[in-house]
Amino acid sequence: MSSGAGASAAETIAHAGPAGDLAVPTERLRRQIEALFAAWCGPDHARASAEVLVEADLMGIDSHGITLVQLYEELVTAGKIARDARVGVVRGFGAVAVVDGGGGFGHAPSLRAMDLAVEKARAFGVGAVGVRNSNHFGAAGVYALRAARAGMIGLATSAVHMPSIVPVFGRVPRLGTNPIAFAAPGAEGEPFLLDIATSTIAIGKLKLASRKGQRLPDGYALDAEGRPQNDPDAALRDRLMTPLGGDRAMGGHKGYGLAAMVEVLSTLLTGASYAPLRAADAPHYDVGHFFLALNPEAFRDDDGAGADGFAHDLDAFVACLRETPPAAGCEAVLAPGDPEHAVRAVRTREGIPIPRSLVERVRGIAAERGADFLLEEPAG
Amino acid sequence: MSSGAGASAAETIAHAGPAGDLAVPTERLRRQIEALFAAWCGPDHARASAEVLVEADLMGIDSHGITLVQLYEELVTAGKIARDARVGVVRGFGAVAVVDGGGGFGHAPSLRAMDLAVEKARAFGVGAVGVRNSNHFGAAGVYALRAARAGMIGLATSAVHMPSIVPVFGRVPRLGTNPIAFAAPGAEGEPFLLDIATSTIAIGKLKLASRKGQRLPDGYALDAEGRPQNDPDAALRDRLMTPLGGDRAMGGHKGYGLAAMVEVLSTLLTGASYAPLRAADAPHYDVGHFFLALNPEAFRDDDGAGADGFAHDLDAFVACLRETPPAAGCEAVLAPGDPEHAVRAVRTREGIPIPRSLVERVRGIAAERGADFLLEEPAG
Repeated sequence: MSSGAGASAAETIAHAGPAGDLAVPTERLRRQIEALFAAWCGPDHARASAEVLVEADLMGIDSHGITLVQLYEELVTAGKIARDARVGVVRGFGAVAVVDGGGGFGHAPSLRAMDLAVEKARAFGVGAVGVRNSNHFGAAGVYALRAARAGMIGLATSAVHMPSIVPVFGRVPRLGTNPIAFAAPGAEGEPFLLDIATSTIAIGKLKLASRKGQRLPDGYALDAEGRPQNDPDAALRDRLMTPLGGDRAMGGHKGYGLAAMVEVLSTLLTGASYAPLRAADAPHYDVGHFFLALNPEAFRDDDGAGADGFAHDLDAFVACLRETPPAAGCEAVLAPGDPEHAVRAVRTREGIPIPRSLVERVRGIAAERGADFLLEEPAG
Repeated sequence: MSSGAGASAAETIAHAGPAGDLAVPTERLRRQIEALFAAWCGPDHARASAEVLVEADLMGIDSHGITLVQLYEELVTAGKIARDARVGVVRGFGAVAVVDGGGGFGHAPSLRAMDLAVEKARAFGVGAVGVRNSNHFGAAGVYALRAARAGMIGLATSAVHMPSIVPVFGRVPRLGTNPIAFAAPGAEGEPFLLDIATSTIAIGKLKLASRKGQRLPDGYALDAEGRPQNDPDAALRDRLMTPLGGDRAMGGHKGYGLAAMVEVLSTLLTGASYAPLRAADAPHYDVGHFFLALNPEAFRDDDGAGADGFAHDLDAFVACLRETPPAAGCEAVLAPGDPEHAVRAVRTREGIPIPRSLVERVRGIAAERGADFLLEEPAG
């Protein structure tokens, strides 16, 4: 069976983490993250933020799980997060709405926005909801997957408060790593899930190369003149990333255009602030996001395939992708989402691996903010 | 002014074509294409198809202009186009609809679908319209731009009747070059326009390398084992293209995921046929497309920026992209759409350049089908 073969291929790359890591059960991780956010900005935000970060950790998107509390502690300390933010729907028009994040964390307004998009898709076949006056919202894939779990096709995009992608032919960053996430529900199988930054690689890969003392290949990052940067430490310092594709010859103009498309949807359509033109004394980053939900039943229920004709077709489609004969030296072809679903299966059983250094950072932040430290069970 | 500087940089790459080409005025080109399509499938389709092909030629998307009549003649001859196709709206639900192309050319149902999406976006803030039972629809950017000219953000995607993109880690194609086009209206400036295939490069680049006797760099195409193919003639024969990004290390899984996303929207959501699973004896290709329109006013008219706050912000955004300091050795940074708009300005004045060999092919097809040959003015 293709489905089993694909999942098994994906499972070979799923693991609970290096031996030295602390394996934390999902529920305990959730309570820890909630405790930190409650200390920063109260219980309503805490529940939403914990849900988004735990989902990312469960799926193996480690760069967007509990590790983010380090970034968030910095943002709170710098006064870039409104700690008493009120989230509200400020616009509603037909199948469209806009949510204002009140300058606080991005998770609560984004969950609200995707749920509203799903509601509108039930009523109108499609729903589109923007978020303005927001901040970092975690992993885009969490929101897209949420729509798919509700039976909808989900699309989520976000701008980023700091530009790092350099336009093709340029040498200064003008766009964030502007992610695109897209998910669609299957009938028997797990949802299709795509969750990508529109840069060629994630910042995490620079850190990995730095730790390993490896040079970067051409096409990952640029120097101050717009030439390839091969030193990972310089790349980490300067954050001059190429758009997906790398240079012009390899299609970098396509990644540049996709990053710019994300900015149009997330920032300009919602009325948020485009980072390079944001006033230097703006109190908050005013980051924008965009959420779209499409109801497959609205398109498909006339074609004799039944109410879940779409979901069955999706299963057949991803099975066909997994059955692609592998290239020489490759084990198997994966469908988009297979790695995430495989990691989730392992981590649900075995817990979420957290490096000891991160455990200690969390302990320090919790002490600083007067929040309970819950990652480790009390001894004895 | 950045806008002027950007347009001028783009104009340096715009030209009316090599000296030997025939320069054909827009209106004459339109009448020629209409005459051919009228011979194939009647006047209603002819008007729509001519409009789409002429727009592509005007914008310099030469691979999707009049050159396509060669492909279309092949499809008609092979019986893959229903010559008496009736286009109709077969589903309507709130802000969503589905158009059936009747097995004919893809242009008429696609123009109908985007116009319907725009209409729904006026009423509901967003409109999403799928097309099934269609065929090759020309350049995706024509449809996205049409929405932008109507004041909307437009998104157009399409599947392709023949797979050519090989999934990462695979050695057999499973997805078409599945294009994504996205456009958004400016206030004073031309619209933002992105029009890309989700493969690393277009087939046209293989042909160019073949004509010039150049080897292909790694990351453009694959051989039968899934290894890099450097011979352009073998690549043209086998059509094993990499997804945008190329291999896994350069982000090929992102392009693969985007191509698959386009298939979900264009094929599975609309109820069209996924090419690798299409019955061998299916009378038509049953290609699917997807069109989305978003009404900026529905999102923005509360924020004090006025009814065209979005369009003004878009102008400022693309100006900021154009003002990006250029990399060493580069003249200027372009905003998405600048090359197309620059070519349009030149070709509107000077005519559309058509290679002599293509002029003769058009003459031959016209004679074969009993259509007038209009590209050249009669002598004397």
